[in-house]
Amino acid sequence: MNAAVSALINGEPGDRVSIQDRGFQYGDGLFETLAVSQGRPLRWERHMQRLFAGAARLGITPPEEAILREEARRLCKDVERAVLKIVLTRGASGRGYAAPQVMSPTRVISLSPWPEYPESHAVNGVDVRVCRTMLSRNPRLAGIKHLNRLEQVLARAEWRDEYAEGLMLDEGGLVIEATMSNLFLVRNGVLLTPELTTCGVEGIMRALVLEKAEALSLPCRVASVTQDDVFYAEELFLTNSLIGLWPVKKLDWNTPERGSKEYPVGKITQAIQEALAK
Amino acid sequence: MNAAVSALINGEPGDRVSIQDRGFQYGDGLFETLAVSQGRPLRWERHMQRLFAGAARLGITPPEEAILREEARRLCKDVERAVLKIVLTRGASGRGYAAPQVMSPTRVISLSPWPEYPESHAVNGVDVRVCRTMLSRNPRLAGIKHLNRLEQVLARAEWRDEYAEGLMLDEGGLVIEATMSNLFLVRNGVLLTPELTTCGVEGIMRALVLEKAEALSLPCRVASVTQDDVFYAEELFLTNSLIGLWPVKKLDWNTPERGSKEYPVGKITQAIQEALAK
Repeated sequence: MNAAVSALINGEPGDRVSIQDRGFQYGDGLFETLAVSQGRPLRWERHMQRLFAGAARLGITPPEEAILREEARRLCKDVERAVLKIVLTRGASGRGYAAPQVMSPTRVISLSPWPEYPESHAVNGVDVRVCRTMLSRNPRLAGIKHLNRLEQVLARAEWRDEYAEGLMLDEGGLVIEATMSNLFLVRNGVLLTPELTTCGVEGIMRALVLEKAEALSLPCRVASVTQDDVFYAEELFLTNSLIGLWPVKKLDWNTPERGSKEYPVGKITQAIQEALAK
Repeated sequence: MNAAVSALINGEPGDRVSIQDRGFQYGDGLFETLAVSQGRPLRWERHMQRLFAGAARLGITPPEEAILREEARRLCKDVERAVLKIVLTRGASGRGYAAPQVMSPTRVISLSPWPEYPESHAVNGVDVRVCRTMLSRNPRLAGIKHLNRLEQVLARAEWRDEYAEGLMLDEGGLVIEATMSNLFLVRNGVLLTPELTTCGVEGIMRALVLEKAEALSLPCRVASVTQDDVFYAEELFLTNSLIGLWPVKKLDWNTPERGSKEYPVGKITQAIQEALAK
């Protein structure tokens, strides 16, 4: 790996963007975070599909997939383990919310160190809290991985190292996801994950888990998930592209009604985990 | 004016920020937009108050006000008419929502050309549409001028030049504000503006209008505003720091129930406009 090049901005080595970039001005863009292993970004096609779907939703013209692939290859070559982040914005413009008539989107592809999570996270599970910061609802933005992430930032600021993750609720008190991962639970033997039609991010790993569950003929549903569903769950786990799957072993509600609750690393969790490892 | 310096980044002339800046990564910051007239940014103290209130809400340590004032003075010196934009972010950090333990916020102060709106906008009023893009609700983010502005961007993309502004509703159908300005209406002789406890930006000019109304002993309320309140209003107007006050002369609902409605430039609108001009 050429240590000097760890980011490409529109194909050129660099580490800065214009203050007029609408990503900086308004969070007007999208991002993807990919695991890199032995020189290759993993699950590339799925990440591209989500990026392109998000770009269509926001009306941002994406670059050719072949260009992104080639740039990713340049950065990831000879890299043993890292994180590849792709940011796509509507590009630079003058002040004001109106997009320029001629758009020149910005793409930033960069490498970051692989986060060294303890191995026990995946094996024994993690401690998680329920955040006070809510997710706001807007169907126009639900599901896509856009750059407006203040809610996640504020939720993540609710703890330091006491927890590995934090669950987030919407205004109606439904459980949606965690700050950087999706939630699955087992209730009455059925695998459930929250529907993400009004908020939340449709994770790549979440889609993969749903496919694995189907392949394993596990009863599985995408549905509204209440706090009671989570509290009385038989198993709980979190997923994203970097962590893979983490069982939740303890959940702190920090409310008078619901204190702290412990969960086993259950059979369905283990079955999914094994299926993902293959 | 030194044409070469139209932006200062942490006090240094420049026009680019790190791709690791959390403003670019997550919209993790705030901004202010000030009118500059004859070398001076207008209503400086009010803008500083809002910026500092927003910084406290987001947990971002703001720079000394004297530093911002001095940098603004450097940029605005000898400038006849322009827009001064101040962006304050949580600064650069590695990947991930967790803020760095030691924060080094980024401040970007820049000048933009004054937008040459037609004079008739303030005199005869403007055409406005009701946007389909909703404002999502989150009390944690309501009122402050943060950098998560995708909803405004998407709403503004609903028209080109047919309208001067677009009204935005929340999920419950309440009328909150317009994409870049606050809304006032007169109903049964009372001046009303939407309360902004769950979404919206508390405009500097909005606060000024409320003060002027009180000084003029006009009956005035900050309240929930329904679509009916707006539809049946006797007068409507929009305010922000750059436009001042624009009466709304026509509002297009584009729905089967409510088509297009015209409004006069009424007595209360004119009284406020005169009070602001003094």
